[in-house]
Amino acid sequence: MKDGLRRRPLPCTMEKRFQQKEERMLIEFSIVPIGSGSSIGDKLAEVLKIVDESGLPYKINPMGTVVEGEWDELFSLVKKCHETLVKKEERVLTTITVDDRKGKPNRLEEKVKSVEKRLGKQLKK
Amino acid sequence: MKDGLRRRPLPCTMEKRFQQKEERMLIEFSIVPIGSGSSIGDKLAEVLKIVDESGLPYKINPMGTVVEGEWDELFSLVKKCHETLVKKEERVLTTITVDDRKGKPNRLEEKVKSVEKRLGKQLKK
Amino acid sequence: MKDGLRRRPLPCTMEKRFQQKEERMLIEFSIVPIGSGSSIGDKLAEVLKIVDESGLPYKINPMGTVVEGEWDELFSLVKKCHETLVKKEERVLTTITVDDRKGKPNRLEEKVKSVEKRLGKQLKK
Amino acid sequence: MKDGLRRRPLPCTMEKRFQQKEERMLIEFSIVPIGSGSSIGDKLAEVLKIVDESGLPYKINPMGTVVEGEWDELFSLVKKCHETLVKKEERVLTTITVDDRKGKPNRLEEKVKSVEKRLGKQLKK
Repeated sequence: MKDGLRRRPLPCTMEKRFQQKEERMLIEFSIVPIGSGSSIGDKLAEVLKIVDESGLPYKINPMGTVVEGEWDELFSLVKKCHETLVKKEERVLTTITVDDRKGKPNRLEEKVKSVEKRLGKQLKK
Repeated sequence: MKDGLRRRPLPCTMEKRFQQKEERMLIEFSIVPIGSGSSIGDKLAEVLKIVDESGLPYKINPMGTVVEGEWDELFSLVKKCHETLVKKEERVLTTITVDDRKGKPNRLEEKVKSVEKRLGKQLKK
Repeated sequence: MKDGLRRRPLPCTMEKRFQQKEERMLIEFSIVPIGSGSSIGDKLAEVLKIVDESGLPYKINPMGTVVEGEWDELFSLVKKCHETLVKKEERVLTTITVDDRKGKPNRLEEKVKSVEKRLGKQLKK
Repeated sequence: MKDGLRRRPLPCTMEKRFQQKEERMLIEFSIVPIGSGSSIGDKLAEVLKIVDESGLPYKINPMGTVVEGEWDELFSLVKKCHETLVKKEERVLTTITVDDRKGKPNRLEEKVKSVEKRLGKQLKK
């Protein structure tokens, strides 16, 4: 057999990336400090800075942040955000919803597009 | 006193609108049919058609829909969406989060903007 | 056919009750005042008094209250609880999850029992 | 001062345990397989077996399971439960709410008791 390429294994990083794609899921999370006033914008800004710097694909909305990734990287991000607020707050309420669907990559973009395609119209985002 | 305008009451509709503004809140909701396959896009499209036609301000994201309004109009919208799916499905799971903050109108737009202003940068939406 | 009884319609109230049973669902809800201190026990007590006096079957747990009933009676209960807190608080966060499954009455008791039966052991409640 | 005991440091394991107590929080979680029928009792039984065998203090209710512990032990439990279902299901929806309050141990029991004390009556559990 001449085709040496096929027999050569994929470089580690590529294999890892491929595997990651298969295991990626969506989460939406929100973190609310309780007991330090009704204006929590400064604290949310701190949390969103951490999300933005994580490098994971995300989208924020008025009620939470949706992030795409593997379980471990997603939950270490949420833990980091949660602990940042817990240091300064008496009480913190964190809510996480995981939507884990096999074999569906890039759902951060595709989920909404797929609904728009069915409806034949653009929705407000 | 010459200023007759001040003593004249506001027209009914304006008073109503002003009052509504004070009582408006944000909800995020999601509706998931359980037990009829993992591809639920057609059913979500039906739900989002109802939301889009309701006339209420909304934004969809990959994990749910955020709508702004008064309690009664928001919950009759969610009820209508829920019942549309219940008619055809064995089991439906609906989740609603209400964020009700006094004296803060137009939070559908302002909540995210306020965080971006604090961070001094645009976030992904 | 002699059996006049069968042809006679059910009295209105009985028909209504039968129909209600079919339409009953479970909700879990929690209401959190934000911005008035981390100790919210007094406010939760007020909310749970309303639930207890509603007459609807319920069970409280450390994270929320599960109630069984029809959509309208459940959501007017949640609205009453929410509005009681909104009167005194700057900001209130209310979360509701609806589990609506056809033809399954008395799920407040039966859901946990059914899992215990499958496991063949009692779980902690 | 004669009391040498007081000056002697605590053994490592006891210090660790004490510290853990301070860092304990409550979570409620629920895991729903989507797309494999409306009767999901067998799958829930599998998940609750894992919770029961984890050794962590927990309480189940008709809508979820409340567990008390530290972040890492709680989230490795939830991950284990989630992955058990993901292996066999096309799509899994997992919801987690974290209530993290400083310096309040044994909240699995105390949260409900504290509300009952304020109300001066027992509530349904």
